[in-house]
Amino acid sequence: MNPRILLARRPSGAPVPEDFRFDQAPLPDLADGEVLVRHRFLSLDPYQRGRMDDAKSYAKPVAIGGVMECQAVGEVAASRDGRFREGDWVLGGFGWQAFSARPGKALIPIDPKEAPPSTSLGVLGMPGLTAWVGLKDIGEPKQGETLVVSAASGAVGQVVGQLGKIAGCRVVGIAGGPAKCAFVKDELGFDAALDHRQPLEAPLDAACPDGVDIYWENVGGAVQAAVFPRLRDFGRMVMCGMIAQYNGAPPPGPNLGPVVRKRLRIQGFIVSDTGWARYAQFRAEMLGHIAAGRLTWREDVVQGLANAPAAFIGLLEGRNFGKLVVALD
Amino acid sequence: MNPRILLARRPSGAPVPEDFRFDQAPLPDLADGEVLVRHRFLSLDPYQRGRMDDAKSYAKPVAIGGVMECQAVGEVAASRDGRFREGDWVLGGFGWQAFSARPGKALIPIDPKEAPPSTSLGVLGMPGLTAWVGLKDIGEPKQGETLVVSAASGAVGQVVGQLGKIAGCRVVGIAGGPAKCAFVKDELGFDAALDHRQPLEAPLDAACPDGVDIYWENVGGAVQAAVFPRLRDFGRMVMCGMIAQYNGAPPPGPNLGPVVRKRLRIQGFIVSDTGWARYAQFRAEMLGHIAAGRLTWREDVVQGLANAPAAFIGLLEGRNFGKLVVALD
Repeated sequence: MNPRILLARRPSGAPVPEDFRFDQAPLPDLADGEVLVRHRFLSLDPYQRGRMDDAKSYAKPVAIGGVMECQAVGEVAASRDGRFREGDWVLGGFGWQAFSARPGKALIPIDPKEAPPSTSLGVLGMPGLTAWVGLKDIGEPKQGETLVVSAASGAVGQVVGQLGKIAGCRVVGIAGGPAKCAFVKDELGFDAALDHRQPLEAPLDAACPDGVDIYWENVGGAVQAAVFPRLRDFGRMVMCGMIAQYNGAPPPGPNLGPVVRKRLRIQGFIVSDTGWARYAQFRAEMLGHIAAGRLTWREDVVQGLANAPAAFIGLLEGRNFGKLVVALD
Repeated sequence: MNPRILLARRPSGAPVPEDFRFDQAPLPDLADGEVLVRHRFLSLDPYQRGRMDDAKSYAKPVAIGGVMECQAVGEVAASRDGRFREGDWVLGGFGWQAFSARPGKALIPIDPKEAPPSTSLGVLGMPGLTAWVGLKDIGEPKQGETLVVSAASGAVGQVVGQLGKIAGCRVVGIAGGPAKCAFVKDELGFDAALDHRQPLEAPLDAACPDGVDIYWENVGGAVQAAVFPRLRDFGRMVMCGMIAQYNGAPPPGPNLGPVVRKRLRIQGFIVSDTGWARYAQFRAEMLGHIAAGRLTWREDVVQGLANAPAAFIGLLEGRNFGKLVVALD
């Protein structure tokens, strides 16, 4: 049987456990060209909150009664695609469930000897690719510039900041609470870490005496309001996400007058538009950084599919510490 | 003697006549390499409002008691630069006055046979160059896209829309009142013209059934609030100015959530950063469009230096109709 987590109903504001439903289904049949994957790690990411609403967006919502969407890594349990054999590790979009049948051509083979397989959901996966694409295409970091990263200890933020350091930037992380701030500064090597549970204005001025060249936006809300006025001429805002407002009515944003005066660029992106076509280049670069000791990561591993809803609810409240994955038996 | 308009004091909100002071000074002496220019047309532009404040900006403010800043075209009255002779027409940054002495190297020679000299302050000058640079570098119009232009009958807007038509866009102008809307549609050839004195939401939906690919921002405020939600995926906001807020406290802006979801780009620019280095290419292209009958313009000509303050105050309230210039005797 295939245990699964379904979307029971559309959330009103913050998701609650009753918005999800546990379910058992028969194992899927394999069509020609398909592969049965036994999931080992599921990826929980903030974008999945958007899939729970039926608002118009860049991707279709999950249907009521449908399996919650996510990427996962797993091992091939059976294959009707000649390119895959039992025991091969693969990455793909599999959903909150223990098994899935997918066309072989939709799978990315991964080599577990290169790095632990779960990293293909984090530093070597969608979040890392998001950081890499957004920083390269929009942030365009230059030696000596100041980069501010919100949600700095999270799956994307931790990679953004480390890539910023590699590019020669002064990197300031913003995170929630002393433990995350200590991790960001001491283990990730950011130049400074600021706690958004305290007022940010004065610490930002102290940490960014020349202002901010690049702001990596993961959160919106009060953090955005504190950083925006500190952007320098020709500053860039890399608009990756605004998790602070995923569960509620969006507040007004900044008046855009400074965008003209300071020649700012505020640009959004979705990693799936151009990222996966460049995955091989990304992965090679990142493995190089890891081998050279320039890039590390932190995962927050939750055991068991049944705990996925609570872990996801916590993710939207910032209760995870590092890249959130669910380990399955 | 040299009649001049000085900044008497910094405005509080909207400028009033008492913020300006008329003055007569002796004609300036000419140093070696300098040229004495007798101004024929002064350019009044919204950016000059910014120069009246002492707020930090991309350019220094005019000092209290200093000559109000502007570009002008005029004839050489005397020259100590071998490249210029009496009677030559030149364009430069001369100020609200009848004469100025400027280094020859700061002057752009213009040929009055190519087009009426005053056009070097409008369609062939800074406003036209602003339109050309911003549309080329940020708007990046493509055949079949929808371009919405605010302040569409103004100095910049009228050029933006016509260049958009040349690029194959569907062009929708927003202007104040029936006369300006008729001009925008009937004389400039925009596909539609909407009156911002009426509610804009339903007319925008009708004029832009597929949404908006490019929004040229000249005004901010309620017009921005109406257009922003109608931007399509990968839409661009060319942030040229926000005249609606130059005289008052800036209101909040749009929540930036859609920037992520729709992969929008909101980018500001100042024409002087890169524009003048490309002036020759711009002018050649524009003269080609004029010769081919693809590009026209409208000027609002005010007679006499003494009327410049009232005309400028009116410009900030949208009372001009077309590119505002002051003709001097």
